[in-house]
Amino acid sequence: MDDVDAVRERKILVAVDGGEESMYALTWALKNVISQNSKDTIVLLYAKQPPVVFTALDGTGILRPRSFSGYLFSSDIANLAKYRDDLAESVIERARRLCRDLNNVKVEVRVEPGDPRDVICEAAEKVGADVLVMGTHGYGLIKRALLGSVSDHCSKKVKCPVLIVKRPNN
Amino acid sequence: MDDVDAVRERKILVAVDGGEESMYALTWALKNVISQNSKDTIVLLYAKQPPVVFTALDGTGILRPRSFSGYLFSSDIANLAKYRDDLAESVIERARRLCRDLNNVKVEVRVEPGDPRDVICEAAEKVGADVLVMGTHGYGLIKRALLGSVSDHCSKKVKCPVLIVKRPNN
Repeated sequence: MDDVDAVRERKILVAVDGGEESMYALTWALKNVISQNSKDTIVLLYAKQPPVVFTALDGTGILRPRSFSGYLFSSDIANLAKYRDDLAESVIERARRLCRDLNNVKVEVRVEPGDPRDVICEAAEKVGADVLVMGTHGYGLIKRALLGSVSDHCSKKVKCPVLIVKRPNN
Repeated sequence: MDDVDAVRERKILVAVDGGEESMYALTWALKNVISQNSKDTIVLLYAKQPPVVFTALDGTGILRPRSFSGYLFSSDIANLAKYRDDLAESVIERARRLCRDLNNVKVEVRVEPGDPRDVICEAAEKVGADVLVMGTHGYGLIKRALLGSVSDHCSKKVKCPVLIVKRPNN
């Protein structure tokens, strides 16, 4: 049992996204796992979903995203990219505020591009997380049914302890 | 976010069995989740596997367990029952000692008969656990391959937060 980490100087990786589930998980961890007086650092991790893949095979010169029935002009693409950036920023800002209000703890932020499943597993390794905290609904309903939940995937793959927090009545 | 429980007076349900994995999970939780000065109660839960089902269909009057190639006499059966009781007692005693040594916390013990998957999920509900702590290897290799791990099952079914602690290098 000698290799169990001590309480101090832990890195607590919390995966956040636009859903209430991840904010609930963060709140729960702040109240139940993170010590007020310790040297804990919360690492807020946001996975920025990859951009739609564009193809222009119909000779129009207008970019057409796969899985999208209409055409997109460059202004639309810029708007989409801006929307993704704004969303990431607003989620991180909300998570930061929770950390400040509930448990004035040290916070680091990582916004990384990619599928949440890969981003979270890789970050846990890179950061050297002592524990990974997640909500349960990182994907939409259909994608979750096809791929399994993000938390299922990560709890199997990640080596550090994983805390899965369900939002009540979900 | 108002419905997140406060830190005080939590019931922390820890599933223990004969494996090192569950003892590691308990140790990790004692060091990382349970506050020294809080009113936390650890509930140590041990699932006593159901006894072998006996049949006596061959007319010998000697009880023969399913999935067992030889015959068992009543003294063997008594020995098996005693072995199961002794095992439960020694696991609980070891877990109690860890709680005493690491984090002089209040401890309750539940030894319940049944499959660990069912016992753990039902106990989480009955006890009103604030968090369920588990190691990752509650079954043997073959049974785990067939049924999935106990932790997979429970993390899907249980409503409270679930902390899955893997033993390093496992």
